[in-house]
Amino acid sequence: MLDDARFGLSRTATLPGPLRLDGGVLLSPVDIAYETYGDLAPDAGNAILVCHALTGDHHVASEHPVTGKPGWWARMVGPGKPIDTDRYFVICVNVLGSCLGSSGPASVNPATGKLWAMAFPVITIRDMVRAQAMLLDHLGIAKLFAAVGGSMGGMQALSWAATFPERVASAVVIASAARHSAQNIAFHEVGRQAIMADHRWRGGDYYADNDPPSSGLAVARMAAHITYLSEAGLTAKFGRKLQSRDAKTFGFDADFQVESYLRHQGLSFVDRFDANSYLYITRALDYFDLAEEHGGTLANAFKRGDTRFCLVSFDTDWLYPTSESRTIVHALNAAGAPVSFVELKSPFGHDAFLLESPELDRVITGFLGAGER
Amino acid sequence: MLDDARFGLSRTATLPGPLRLDGGVLLSPVDIAYETYGDLAPDAGNAILVCHALTGDHHVASEHPVTGKPGWWARMVGPGKPIDTDRYFVICVNVLGSCLGSSGPASVNPATGKLWAMAFPVITIRDMVRAQAMLLDHLGIAKLFAAVGGSMGGMQALSWAATFPERVASAVVIASAARHSAQNIAFHEVGRQAIMADHRWRGGDYYADNDPPSSGLAVARMAAHITYLSEAGLTAKFGRKLQSRDAKTFGFDADFQVESYLRHQGLSFVDRFDANSYLYITRALDYFDLAEEHGGTLANAFKRGDTRFCLVSFDTDWLYPTSESRTIVHALNAAGAPVSFVELKSPFGHDAFLLESPELDRVITGFLGAGER
Repeated sequence: MLDDARFGLSRTATLPGPLRLDGGVLLSPVDIAYETYGDLAPDAGNAILVCHALTGDHHVASEHPVTGKPGWWARMVGPGKPIDTDRYFVICVNVLGSCLGSSGPASVNPATGKLWAMAFPVITIRDMVRAQAMLLDHLGIAKLFAAVGGSMGGMQALSWAATFPERVASAVVIASAARHSAQNIAFHEVGRQAIMADHRWRGGDYYADNDPPSSGLAVARMAAHITYLSEAGLTAKFGRKLQSRDAKTFGFDADFQVESYLRHQGLSFVDRFDANSYLYITRALDYFDLAEEHGGTLANAFKRGDTRFCLVSFDTDWLYPTSESRTIVHALNAAGAPVSFVELKSPFGHDAFLLESPELDRVITGFLGAGER
Repeated sequence: MLDDARFGLSRTATLPGPLRLDGGVLLSPVDIAYETYGDLAPDAGNAILVCHALTGDHHVASEHPVTGKPGWWARMVGPGKPIDTDRYFVICVNVLGSCLGSSGPASVNPATGKLWAMAFPVITIRDMVRAQAMLLDHLGIAKLFAAVGGSMGGMQALSWAATFPERVASAVVIASAARHSAQNIAFHEVGRQAIMADHRWRGGDYYADNDPPSSGLAVARMAAHITYLSEAGLTAKFGRKLQSRDAKTFGFDADFQVESYLRHQGLSFVDRFDANSYLYITRALDYFDLAEEHGGTLANAFKRGDTRFCLVSFDTDWLYPTSESRTIVHALNAAGAPVSFVELKSPFGHDAFLLESPELDRVITGFLGAGER
């Protein structure tokens, strides 16, 4: 199956639209890069949409074209895996505003023939979901068997259930939240200011000479990366270990392993991500507040449909802590929606959803299996 | 008393040294800017050294010369206040490496006649303490009644007790730690990289044309500032409140109040602080590990003296959480040192030690009073 062309087939659909964005702009046409795995059933009833996180992409279980690394959730998606591509038709879409083939600031503005840069309209999580729905129309999929995602991917799954309740039978929401907190916004604002502080950002018009604001983007990534890891995890992995066995250098090189690790995270990120896309997607996250979209009451977001929900949080996740998942569960209870919820133990903080976790595998396998029965 | 010239008397001592730094360099001469309040007793037995935090200064209870704001601990230090300048002779020293008058990267290198910039030697918390001890020699103070500080100031108080146990009768250590954790180092490394990413940093040689790396320094301050506040405090103060009553702008201006607040914190900081000093002092903090200086066992740091200790932590401080204070208390217990410890409740996170806190006032008043008896 792994040699089959159907496994990890990358395509880009150019859909006429128009896509009416939350900000009021009509986007047309809309490029949507996506990847599919497995076969769509004759009744199109076995489609699972996997939604990616802030800096993710549609290469969920196939090699990344830039880094050559395995897909970001290859351990979850594949033949015989929890999201089993022998049974399900799996779709993963590069979100609107990103930089891996879907329309975003680094893509061409058809009205001018030039790259959008900061003229690209500000988008929301719901806009990303609307674009995905357009793609499903294009693919002839009326209703998803499931929408699944962690972090920002979980927000998309929630937004799917709230925006198109008739089109999604179940939603799996992992390490996520129904809104960005003040602290979440604060960290993203640091990242945006770091990018904009880089003199090479130039108001976003940096594409022509291939000299992007990589220093600022690396700093943004470093700051964000700290929030993806738990304090205990950082201590266990690095503590105060030095780079060399020798003493401190009494200089400003990376003496500590954690410094070197963070610098590497920043530097490797800039090779695969666009700074303007980082601005747009963090903005979409900060704007996300599902209750606000529904009259200020989160339960109202879930009153129209019969979507089943599965929520998972991790006990050391301080970016989107368990309390955020609990808030969603309470709202689902108030709306009378079926929901299962579990907090898993992990030393790895927010990043736990991407890592080896037999418990998470069991939860997802069980939840999807129950949906078939 | 407030009109008395003795209240908040700013001076700079140029001491011949040499000061032997932990990095091996001999610094000579050493400029030390300091401020004193109250009168030194004839037996010089009523001196309290107040130690400031990362971006603090010696203007503990007098107007800041740049911002015009009241001293950073004016609520704690003054006539009739917990650190009572009617009874104690209070000294506050601008730490070595800082930029308010003490020797640091923004001061003149006597060997070249030019500003040090990054040629200034990397310093440690213990070096700061050694410089303070030289000043006490100069002032004729053999033994401190107390060394008191919050955050990095608390580390200096700890280092005083470990380095000069015979010269400090009591130490008050508030919201502090005996070593920087991996997460502490990580946040500081983000700040340093933000400064160095600013093209105006130029390897630290930015003094000549008055064009400092203010964008990078502002980003560094923003990232650090998040760690000074609790998540709950940010939510209570800002939540998702917008700047205007109107809807979101769908742009990249500061829509949310928390964004505007953080930007203000960054911008106002660059007017009063030097970017190179920020590099040096964060480095000193990251290097701080009192156990490492004493054979890997923290208790060894406290076995030589008879200093009394008072430790205070705040329950919402996630920069130097209560567990760090507890580690110190356990080491003091193991060393047989007298210690009182309390965790105070506060919604304000790490910054709580700077804010109105009647409980903290009572703890300090009681502890200092007991020391007189």
